[in-house]
Amino acid sequence: MKPIYLDNGATSFPKAPGLGSAMAQFIEEVGSNINRGTYRSAINTEMVVMETREMLCKLFHFSDPSHVLFTKNITESLNVLLKGYLRPGDHCLVSSMEHNAVMRPLVQLEQQGVTFDRVPCTRQGELILEEMEGMIHPNTKLVVMLHASNVCGTLLPISRVGQLCKKYGIPLVLDSAQTAGLLDVNFEELGLSALAFTGHKGLLGPQGMGGFLVSDSMAQQLIPLIAGGTGSASDQEEMPEFLPDRFEAGTMNLPGIIGLRHALCYLEETGIDTIQQREFALTRRFLEGLSVIPGVRLQGRWSLKGRVPVLSVDFLGQDNAEVAHRLEQEFGILTRVGLHCAPSAHRTLGTFPRGTVRFSIGHANTAQEIDAALLGIQRLARAPQSQMQGPRRQFVGVAQGYGQSMPNNRSHGRPVRNRPL
Amino acid sequence: MKPIYLDNGATSFPKAPGLGSAMAQFIEEVGSNINRGTYRSAINTEMVVMETREMLCKLFHFSDPSHVLFTKNITESLNVLLKGYLRPGDHCLVSSMEHNAVMRPLVQLEQQGVTFDRVPCTRQGELILEEMEGMIHPNTKLVVMLHASNVCGTLLPISRVGQLCKKYGIPLVLDSAQTAGLLDVNFEELGLSALAFTGHKGLLGPQGMGGFLVSDSMAQQLIPLIAGGTGSASDQEEMPEFLPDRFEAGTMNLPGIIGLRHALCYLEETGIDTIQQREFALTRRFLEGLSVIPGVRLQGRWSLKGRVPVLSVDFLGQDNAEVAHRLEQEFGILTRVGLHCAPSAHRTLGTFPRGTVRFSIGHANTAQEIDAALLGIQRLARAPQSQMQGPRRQFVGVAQGYGQSMPNNRSHGRPVRNRPL
Repeated sequence: MKPIYLDNGATSFPKAPGLGSAMAQFIEEVGSNINRGTYRSAINTEMVVMETREMLCKLFHFSDPSHVLFTKNITESLNVLLKGYLRPGDHCLVSSMEHNAVMRPLVQLEQQGVTFDRVPCTRQGELILEEMEGMIHPNTKLVVMLHASNVCGTLLPISRVGQLCKKYGIPLVLDSAQTAGLLDVNFEELGLSALAFTGHKGLLGPQGMGGFLVSDSMAQQLIPLIAGGTGSASDQEEMPEFLPDRFEAGTMNLPGIIGLRHALCYLEETGIDTIQQREFALTRRFLEGLSVIPGVRLQGRWSLKGRVPVLSVDFLGQDNAEVAHRLEQEFGILTRVGLHCAPSAHRTLGTFPRGTVRFSIGHANTAQEIDAALLGIQRLARAPQSQMQGPRRQFVGVAQGYGQSMPNNRSHGRPVRNRPL
Repeated sequence: MKPIYLDNGATSFPKAPGLGSAMAQFIEEVGSNINRGTYRSAINTEMVVMETREMLCKLFHFSDPSHVLFTKNITESLNVLLKGYLRPGDHCLVSSMEHNAVMRPLVQLEQQGVTFDRVPCTRQGELILEEMEGMIHPNTKLVVMLHASNVCGTLLPISRVGQLCKKYGIPLVLDSAQTAGLLDVNFEELGLSALAFTGHKGLLGPQGMGGFLVSDSMAQQLIPLIAGGTGSASDQEEMPEFLPDRFEAGTMNLPGIIGLRHALCYLEETGIDTIQQREFALTRRFLEGLSVIPGVRLQGRWSLKGRVPVLSVDFLGQDNAEVAHRLEQEFGILTRVGLHCAPSAHRTLGTFPRGTVRFSIGHANTAQEIDAALLGIQRLARAPQSQMQGPRRQFVGVAQGYGQSMPNNRSHGRPVRNRPL
């Protein structure tokens, strides 16, 4: 049984074609460090790293490659931004949908006198923007939000959050873990001061690579979380003032950067529009199929608009962990079950602590795989008697097409499946 | 002209045979995250990661694989240990030979009320141990030292430092950047509380991998520098108490871990004794040849005992950067010139701020390469007239053999070369 990989929200698989070979070639043929030697291969590597920064600038509509910094993962990026920026007495605003990559650092910072509040979201994970302005205090120094939920895929209205932040002069940090490489994430248009990204999800690069982009004004207030040798200003025991060195101490993950660059080239050639259309077509197919399966509840929006292809399903009356295990054992379908490192999001969605089974679609999935997943869901779902009697529910998104909105508060009852998937 | 790589102190090259392929295979065929899914490939990967921890335990004579933690580089490891352990009012002792991976975090910590002192070293980089005990204060809470200097290769007497630390109940943290994979670094025998390592130097793994081993008692006092999702205890917004999860937030560098494991297998098969003998034979050859070249000065010990194959050369009366450039251009010899991210060490050695040209020998270097490097040095060195008249100086280490000590304070005058290299 060939496995069907639907855990792209955790890490994309397969990666960009040729990724492994590109990294292997570097390791076997080049291998040199940058900033650590003046010989030619060291300098060539440095140029490749700078090119990678430039490609990320292009992807995120950002102007200064020296302010594109590499980390080991987006969690480190968010720690660098939160812990480097917030001081005792500062207040921070987040959404109630955040991942623990934001919540756990913030809870740590509480010990140092930082406070935070969560802007509430609906049970579909939509930010209640009108509540936000009233939550801004004179000591609110930072707003941090994810672009799309890693639990249910709901997008947050970052552009409007950015306008509000501009109005109050508060920097906005975006967690792009579930959108980079899939949507057009525009640093300027969204009104960001920093954008944290991961290399191994939608960007199709290797695990071990992440980073962030930061405005110069925010960078000036940021104390480096990790200090050490940079191969520059080596006569000093303070971190250099200039970027990128200020935030890149120690030997860099060069195979990872080479890999990320390779993946960014693939994305450029393919076009993220193309990938987006492909994934949204599959998402539509999934939602359409799911809408006629009784005994399951989608957590999050039924609409294609305002979401990404991360789909959380609650198997009513069952242990979701057991269902996920059976999906793999009996159907070869690889998902992720549980709380997805986001207890705050699950509390918001009403699925805490039982969690959900998450199906996350990637660039290489096919319609046949989606159909197989739906068949698996249908076989394992248990329709409660009461729902068996309910009216047939049409998936509105199909008729309205991608890009159309749907009612937010549709009820969770699912009709009997009435046609082949 | 085939380049001769003598910058193994920065990163080893070539890496363990087959390293690139092993990583590529993982990326192209497995690719899954650990702790993030229950499906089979996720679980298999988790076992490989645990095996890697166990191999590091074996290498460093450490008993608890759950207390082997992965980071992106040894700089992060040292930041985690220093910033996670030291509190305002604490005092820390280091040697005067430390790398900026230790000094820069400490200088940052000064802002938070941490103080530190440097135990002095000789101009050969040898720790003056008898000074150390008097520098221990009631608030001395940590001692951090490198095992061998990354500038001149001199070993520090860590075992005796460890005894002193035990006497006063102070944890000792070791920076093993220049010794792991080359010497038998014994966690227990050295009296360590933590050992920071890098994967890409003597361990022959890829850049992007580092880590540390930590005793349980020190771990209990350590606040995680980076917090976030761990795929465990996901109902909580605090970091889990248990290791390794407590210190491994975010997606791990799995290709890097697979690569490190591959390299550790190669080291086990080859034997670090074998690598050590090979590298020390080349070091002897280098020292022997250098000892009869006028116009250069070795910084550090002439003896093979008490050092590693990291050799710093000062080209008298010349710009060392210019010399290093010519070594590459005219002889294909790749070195590292400057201050090697260690201004404190260069001040100790008396080479601040002009720096040195560093030749660092690796597992794959050959006698022919050493001879070529010596020829390059000899061609570029400029013998001062006064030295041309001096007596011929024999390299004593050759007669005494590896493992024998040599006088520490030999003068820097070098005789005329009197035989072919």
